Parts: sequence; C-alpha cells; structure tokens
Amino acid sequence: MENFTFYSPTFFVFGKDTETQAGEYVKQFGGTKVLIHYGGQSAKKSGLLDRVEDSLKKEGIEYVTLGGVKPNPRSGLVYEGIELCRKEGVDFILAVGGGSVIDSSKAIAAGTIYDGDFWDFYSGKPIEKALPVGTVLTIAAAGSEGSPDSVITKEEGMFKRGASGNAIRPRFSILNPALTETLPPHQTAAGITDIMAHLYERYLTNTKEVEVTDRLIEALLLTMKHEGPRVIADPHNYEARANIMWAGMVAHNNTCGVGRSQDWNSHNIEHELSALYDCAHGAGLAVTMPAVFKYVMNHDVMRFAKVAVRVWGCQMDFDHPEVTALEGIEAFRSFLISLGMPKNFEELGAKEEDIPKLVEVLCRGDGRDGTISGFVTLNEEDCTKIYQMMV
Amino acid sequence: MENFTFYSPTFFVFGKDTETQAGEYVKQFGGTKVLIHYGGQSAKKSGLLDRVEDSLKKEGIEYVTLGGVKPNPRSGLVYEGIELCRKEGVDFILAVGGGSVIDSSKAIAAGTIYDGDFWDFYSGKPIEKALPVGTVLTIAAAGSEGSPDSVITKEEGMFKRGASGNAIRPRFSILNPALTETLPPHQTAAGITDIMAHLYERYLTNTKEVEVTDRLIEALLLTMKHEGPRVIADPHNYEARANIMWAGMVAHNNTCGVGRSQDWNSHNIEHELSALYDCAHGAGLAVTMPAVFKYVMNHDVMRFAKVAVRVWGCQMDFDHPEVTALEGIEAFRSFLISLGMPKNFEELGAKEEDIPKLVEVLCRGDGRDGTISGFVTLNEEDCTKIYQMMV
Repeated sequence: MENFTFYSPTFFVFGKDTETQAGEYVKQFGGTKVLIHYGGQSAKKSGLLDRVEDSLKKEGIEYVTLGGVKPNPRSGLVYEGIELCRKEGVDFILAVGGGSVIDSSKAIAAGTIYDGDFWDFYSGKPIEKALPVGTVLTIAAAGSEGSPDSVITKEEGMFKRGASGNAIRPRFSILNPALTETLPPHQTAAGITDIMAHLYERYLTNTKEVEVTDRLIEALLLTMKHEGPRVIADPHNYEARANIMWAGMVAHNNTCGVGRSQDWNSHNIEHELSALYDCAHGAGLAVTMPAVFKYVMNHDVMRFAKVAVRVWGCQMDFDHPEVTALEGIEAFRSFLISLGMPKNFEELGAKEEDIPKLVEVLCRGDGRDGTISGFVTLNEEDCTKIYQMMV
Repeated sequence: MENFTFYSPTFFVFGKDTETQAGEYVKQFGGTKVLIHYGGQSAKKSGLLDRVEDSLKKEGIEYVTLGGVKPNPRSGLVYEGIELCRKEGVDFILAVGGGSVIDSSKAIAAGTIYDGDFWDFYSGKPIEKALPVGTVLTIAAAGSEGSPDSVITKEEGMFKRGASGNAIRPRFSILNPALTETLPPHQTAAGITDIMAHLYERYLTNTKEVEVTDRLIEALLLTMKHEGPRVIADPHNYEARANIMWAGMVAHNNTCGVGRSQDWNSHNIEHELSALYDCAHGAGLAVTMPAVFKYVMNHDVMRFAKVAVRVWGCQMDFDHPEVTALEGIEAFRSFLISLGMPKNFEELGAKEEDIPKLVEVLCRGDGRDGTISGFVTLNEEDCTKIYQMMV
C-alpha cells in the first residue's frame, strides 16, 4: 500500500424528510446569507425548494436563489453565480440537486472570494479557500456530496475539466433517498453507472496487495449489482434507493481508494463525449467502460478475472484466465444494458466521424502531451481505437 | 435503512515513517503545549517516543510526558493525567500507543477542562468539550483512532464503562503499519479479533435490507480472514499489516454500521472478563463471541447463514440453513484459535465459579436493570448460560 492521507470531514445527514433540517445545518456551519443553487423546474414543482426555503426562514436566514444548472454544468452560470454572490454578500452556498448542481456550487464558492478568473482552478491552480458549501442531494451518482472535486465545462472550446480542494468539500450533505424516487429511469440508471465507474476507476490499479480496498470496492459493486435492477423495477423501493445512495457516497469519498494508484482513463475518455453531445455522463460511461476495459485487459488479466469472479459470479477458468476476465467485462456490459443504458455510439447520439476531433481534444486539449495516463498510458492511436470499439 | 448522521472528520496520515510528522500535525491542529501519553517501555525502547519528541521539538512545541497506560486502562492514571495537564497548562493530548492509550488520552482530554469528576462522562453524561487529541497508533485493534469512543475501567468495583462524543474524536491519527510489526503475536491476534468483533457487532442487526453495510462488513471480514494468517506467519509482512490497519479504522468509524441497529452484547459480556481477569480484550472476545452467537443464532438463522456463505465460504444448506449458520460460527471460532487465541475460560484464565459474580456486575452493575440489550435482549439466566458455554 502506498502512503496516503485521508480526510472526509463532511457531516452527513441521511434519511427520510431530512431536507427540512437544511436551515439548522446552514446555521450550525455559520451561514447567514445563502445562495440556493439548483437545476431545473423539478426541484420547484416537487415542493423540495419550498421545504428547503422554509427551513432557512425558520432559522431566520436570508437567501437568494439561482437555478438553471444543466447536466455537464457550464462556466457561464458559474460566472453569473459569482457575480450574484458578490452583489448580495452571500456567505454560504447551498446546492439543491445532483452532482452538476453541487459541482457548479463548488465553483461559485471558490470563485466568489477569488480575485482572478475561477477557471484558473480548473486549469491546475490549487483551491485554497472558498465559501462554505452545503448540499441537499437529489441524485445518487457523482459522489460530489462527499468529495473535494468539481467538474465544469467551458463553453468556449467545450473543455470539460476538474478542480479539487478540501476548501470546496461540503460542510454538510443531506441525503434523503426518497428525493431520488421521482427521477426518470434513465437518470437513475446513469447514476448507478457513474457510481460503478467510480469503483472501477479505483479497482484498476497498479499497486499490489491492496486487499482491503479491493474488497471494499467489490462490496460496493455487489451492492449496485443487487440494488440496481430492484430500483429500476420499482422506482419507489426506498430501501434499494437508500443502499445505492450510501454506496454512492462511500464509492467516491475515497475510503475504498486510498493507498493505491487509480485509473480514471474511462472518465477522461467519456468527458469528451458528454462535453460534445451533452449526453448524461453515466450513459457515456456505460458505452466507454467496456471498450476501455477490453482494450487494457491484457495489462493485468488476473485483476479483471478477480472482479469477474468476486463480483459478477463468473467461474474462474484457471487454464484461461483471460476468458474469465472477458466474461466479467461482458457481464458488466450486459448489466448496464439491462438497466437501460446505451450500448454504442448510435444509442448515445455520438458520431463515428467525430472521432478525430474527440481524440484531438482528449489528448491535446488544454496543454496535454498526446497521451492520457492511468492504469495504462494511452496515446492518440489507442484512444482512436477505443472510440472505434464503441461505434 | 434507519435515518442516521455520519461524521468522521479525523485527518488520517497513513504509511511508513509518518510518525515523524506528528509535530507538524500538532501544530496544524493548534497544539502549543502537549501531553504525550503512552504505555510501557516498548515505545521508549523502540525509539518511537524519541522520533515523536523530535518532531515536536522541530516545530518548537513544548511537551510533558506521562507513560504507564495498561491494557484495560484505569481511572487512576486518568486522574493523574488530568492533574498534570492542569498544572502544566497542556492544550493538546498526543496519544502514542494502541486503543488503551488513546482511550486514556480521550478521558484526560475531556476531564482536564471539566469541573466535576471525569467519571461522570462514563456514567452517561454527554461529553461536550475536550482538549484536542491526536494519535500515533501502534496496534491495529480498537479503532479508537477514528472513533468518538473511550472505554475506561474504574478500579473501585472494577467497572469497565464507555463514553462517547465528537469532542474526543482524534483531530488527526497517524497510522504507520510498520510500528505494529514488533507486537508479540498474541497482541497481533487479539487486535485482529477485536476488529472482527467490531464487524460482527454491526453485522448482527435487526434492521432489514441493509445490503450496502452488510457487504462492507463482509468485505472487511474477508480482509481479516485473508490477512490475519499472513501476518501471524510473518510479522514483518508490511502489506498485510497495512491492510489490517486500514480495515481496523473503517471497521469502527461506522462507515459500515450506519442506519442499522447494532449488537454489542459480546462486548458487554467480554468487558466483565477483561475487567476481572485483566486479559486482552481481543482474547476475551475470542472466547465470548462463538458462545454468544450460538446462543442467539435462532433469532435470525438466515443472517448467520449469510455470513457463513459470504465470508467463511460455507456451502449453503438450503434445506437446513441452521446447519450452515452453525458451520459459519465454528469456522470463525477455528479461525480465531488458529491465530493463537484462547478457546475457553481455562485458556483465558477465567474461572467457572466466578460466573455468578460476572453476571451480577454485567446485568446489575452501574444501575442496569437485570438485562443487556442488542441483537437480542439477554437476562441474567441467558448471560449465565452463555458464560457456562465458554467454560
């Protein structure tokens, strides 16, 4: 195991009706003037925003609101949020939504008290301070509720890039699984895929003898395998929703990823797809991961055989481990398709003729040197082949 | 899943040579005058104390030291520590040792700035404030490095009781697996047993449909099953030590125990043994758990069958699940014995004739009403039978 530090100080409030405590927690964590940041109309129509606003009023906390966050959140709205926060003297950002809303909130939190352009943080500058952020989570997917990460897309060039820092970790996150019951099935499935991607990206490691984190990752994958189909079959299965929601947090707060190298090539390859086609990140990952895994499988066949046996219930072929490894990848792919995820470029809305452009932005965009690295280092030729496997 | 809150803000520093960073972290978390609290001579002889002291000196931080913490830490030394801290104006407690040293440090931290008798906290008074505590962990076992808990034994009456509160959670914990390599095999095995007990106490739940936490617990049990024998066979297996050490933290910071009822009857039943005979807590648990599990098995046979199949590799007997359930308990018992743990009262140094006294203190001591409750509520007759099964 490699040396590491681990820090996950977010206060989690989990369960039914917990969104009505948002005001109490904002107060406890020092907020006096809040920006409630949210996405589309569903938060309004469902009454969720009203309940959150009521909880702030009850504590005598002032607030302004800014909706309109879209999946793959854009820098334009972040600039708008920063301006609003400065004008209104906001001292606390409350995200009410999924990963996109939380990521946009984190960007606003860092940008509001920064003299330069907030995009600096998404070009490599460390985030040292930010307004405190709290969240009321409505989608189990991104894990942003317990992570120091944020991903934003810059309209100019459609660069999708990440920033990270403890200053933008949520101070508290309210997780009510019942809020996820009204999601369309496609979004639920995309969220499940995203969570499983966070697990696979950590599973694909070059660090040896990391049994504890291997086992924890497998535990969470097994949970998703069990609960995914149950929640697609019955969107109102609260218990399945609850298991998925906690798994989504633990999958990404790094409890199961410490002390080991990680991959993240699938995320990078996918980011260009959701940036260009504006598809759901999880849907893009469903098409990307099987292709990437097949392409890199021979780098460590036994690792792929392990997850095949331990998670997907494959019988180990001791004479031909590569058969088992491939069987596990196919089982994962079939699982994602069974949830309703797309299986290729066409179903995703992507176009084969765009591959050169995708590879260019992926491998050369934003100062990259022609390769992306993770479990395996991939060059432009590799990435071209991987995108072609997805057609 | 039940509603819950989860909070684990400790900053973990994990890996080789990390104890030399103790001074930096004390400084970062605001300490200016430190009590270094430790156990016996091994911390001195091994050079560990010197390295920690050097790291404090390097940061210009003053300190006093207080050694002598024994397993099953006593209130006497806590009173001594409180007096010393008040006299010296200590503002930070640095525990260098295992669970006993950390628990004693937490008690001193709470007691130093409390007007009354610190034992109030161990009789049910909530801990609201305490001096900050940091740890340099030397035994993977108690999980106290990431928990809000402390257990202290009061000499008068030999009551062993716990206290809990976020104020006594370590601000930082330094975990260097190499520091555990010099432990005697019995202590290593007792630590492994304690970690597995923390997992079983959470596994034995009456809450239904908690797949995510079931799977996480099983993952950590599987890790211990794999790494336990490796570390007993080769005490210098750093990787196995590392996997066990992280498992020990995750097992007890409650990531895998949230939203479900828990048991803790085995801990309560064992506490009377280590209080009376001063045996290692883990050794006491090794004798206690199989007896308790057999006694309560019929309360939920399928739960015991599940852990038997998923962790102990038993084949499910679908016609007689109770056969599988029992097989899993026996497999666990055999595993503990194979690590060198005692299997009965005699090997533990306990005496059959003391059973009435053990039951009296357990069920009536400190204001209890004749029962203890957890997975199953047990009365004096139940507890008598359980102790008799251990003879």
